[in-house]
Amino acid sequence: MTDRIPALDRQAAQAMQARLDRKTKPLGSLGRLEELAVSLAGMGGDLPGGFKRRAVLVAAADHGIARQGVSAYPPEVTPQMVLNFLAGGAAINVLAKQGGARVLVLDAGVNDASAPLPLHAGLLRRPVAPGTADFSQGPAMTRAQAEACVQAGREAVSQLAAEGLDLLAVGEMGIGNTTAASAICAALLQLPVAQVTGRGTGLDVAGWEKKVAILEKALALHQPQATDAWDVLCKVGGFEIGALAGALMEASARRIPVILDGFITGAAALLANAWAPEAKGYWLASHQSVEIGHRHLLERLGLRAYLNLDLRLGEGSGAALMFPLVDAVCAIVRDMATFDSAGVSDKEAGQAV
Amino acid sequence: MTDRIPALDRQAAQAMQARLDRKTKPLGSLGRLEELAVSLAGMGGDLPGGFKRRAVLVAAADHGIARQGVSAYPPEVTPQMVLNFLAGGAAINVLAKQGGARVLVLDAGVNDASAPLPLHAGLLRRPVAPGTADFSQGPAMTRAQAEACVQAGREAVSQLAAEGLDLLAVGEMGIGNTTAASAICAALLQLPVAQVTGRGTGLDVAGWEKKVAILEKALALHQPQATDAWDVLCKVGGFEIGALAGALMEASARRIPVILDGFITGAAALLANAWAPEAKGYWLASHQSVEIGHRHLLERLGLRAYLNLDLRLGEGSGAALMFPLVDAVCAIVRDMATFDSAGVSDKEAGQAV
Repeated sequence: MTDRIPALDRQAAQAMQARLDRKTKPLGSLGRLEELAVSLAGMGGDLPGGFKRRAVLVAAADHGIARQGVSAYPPEVTPQMVLNFLAGGAAINVLAKQGGARVLVLDAGVNDASAPLPLHAGLLRRPVAPGTADFSQGPAMTRAQAEACVQAGREAVSQLAAEGLDLLAVGEMGIGNTTAASAICAALLQLPVAQVTGRGTGLDVAGWEKKVAILEKALALHQPQATDAWDVLCKVGGFEIGALAGALMEASARRIPVILDGFITGAAALLANAWAPEAKGYWLASHQSVEIGHRHLLERLGLRAYLNLDLRLGEGSGAALMFPLVDAVCAIVRDMATFDSAGVSDKEAGQAV
Repeated sequence: MTDRIPALDRQAAQAMQARLDRKTKPLGSLGRLEELAVSLAGMGGDLPGGFKRRAVLVAAADHGIARQGVSAYPPEVTPQMVLNFLAGGAAINVLAKQGGARVLVLDAGVNDASAPLPLHAGLLRRPVAPGTADFSQGPAMTRAQAEACVQAGREAVSQLAAEGLDLLAVGEMGIGNTTAASAICAALLQLPVAQVTGRGTGLDVAGWEKKVAILEKALALHQPQATDAWDVLCKVGGFEIGALAGALMEASARRIPVILDGFITGAAALLANAWAPEAKGYWLASHQSVEIGHRHLLERLGLRAYLNLDLRLGEGSGAALMFPLVDAVCAIVRDMATFDSAGVSDKEAGQAV
């Protein structure tokens, strides 16, 4: 892919730090909030404006690998949860509403035979197929399918951008998708499966061991190439993961800051990073997931999570919890007094200014 | 002191966990947000009600020890910052407003000779003295002064409670007060000074070494008794720190949840914990400060911070950043669908309910 990702605005980032340094507080004392402000400024964000037009893009799809019993929940839960998203009853609905964001669900390949999805303004239907093939038996998808799901993610962001978008959070739903994410992570980071595989939505020890064994066999079967993200996506990926990778690249190309969620959006970020290495300058890591692979992929991406709340829900829930932090830094930038304006003595001067 | 602190409501806490377990999400997948909800329920909090009546109590006072040059800022900054709080220009004003909380400043002993404090509805004036005595030379305060500052903190909470208070955050302002907090921490935790002393608002290495040396000398001079919190407060404490200890006990006695801020409010919590060991059941640790002593005192209190944002500002800024998390858990409890209501398959059942 040949996305042209605009360079970060280093001058705006420096100007933001200088602006923060004039505020009535010890230099640097707001720690990572200052880092967040500087990052957003570098992305071209209008902090005083407050990033008011916000959305959470939740990509959903089913996974053939779920038939191997790698999840604590049955595959029917994927369409059921999409219906829950559309009805507004899921965690991501509640948290997005708290954060002033709308929710767009992208059906990248949900098997809705058991729970048909309706026409709905909050649902963009671009299903590549009713779920991937079981990658313990063969490739998860064809190259054409891989390109289609990436394109679906781009399209979702383009639709959101057309409606107006200052800040994007991403999330996902797909029973079995931590298994695909672990496979992607193991392949791209070249790490042992056990180091990047967690308990998903709630496996017990035996379930975890089975998941690891299935992943090890699948990776031995496919030998995905660490240097070829398309190969990895085709062999062990998921439609929603490919869609999220496309969404991340599209948002970055448009200079829209993107808040990542947990392990699965992180796996999508690894793919997007392979295709468009400049894109990650527009990404923020919201939280450090309980999933053990998350730490490794954030390290690879050079991102540091802002929150560590032991979350393992997905849907974009952790990403949505970043909205209040963004609000906080915007308010700090906009409303806090400066040493000059408040008549407070600065450290250097040592006396009232 | 003989505060009667009401017991936590274990039944309400259990009922809250059961309520969360029926929500459409994997069991426990909201991690520390669930822990926060359960804690607040155990304190008697009305989560669906949303803790709407909120306040940040910022206790301020000056410190004789500041004359030893232990801070990067001159003592005049204390009254200047109080004026900034009253004008609404400080970080805590901005963050409290974002969190829907009012700010009450308690003058527990500000030296306002250089910047006289006005009559103001947001300022409760109960100055014990215009700053403590320099504890490198003698005791910081008399026993009567210690009791007066603790009482001032109680009074502040009583005033806030009379106006209606569902949730309290605490913060402080006082040039030199990390030095007093380090002394309290070293004395009560019986730890070496260097392990509980940080760089405050921004000391360099030489400044830090000087601060440690001054503290070591002062503790050798006073030999404060680890088992006698009054002795510690009198010898090396601060008026705002004593006031905060009083505020913490008063809030707990009234079953009002209190959000602690960083190292200095933590030192106050150590004092309050010595006087009223049951009180800490009503406290929440907001963030893990950059100040190295903070970790040790949270461990002693058995509290775990929710946020880790490398903050070192004080004022209650980290505590105020917890308001959005409280909003999030209240919304989750109030608005999220249950497996039953949404028709989503539960893990145990393995099929649609």
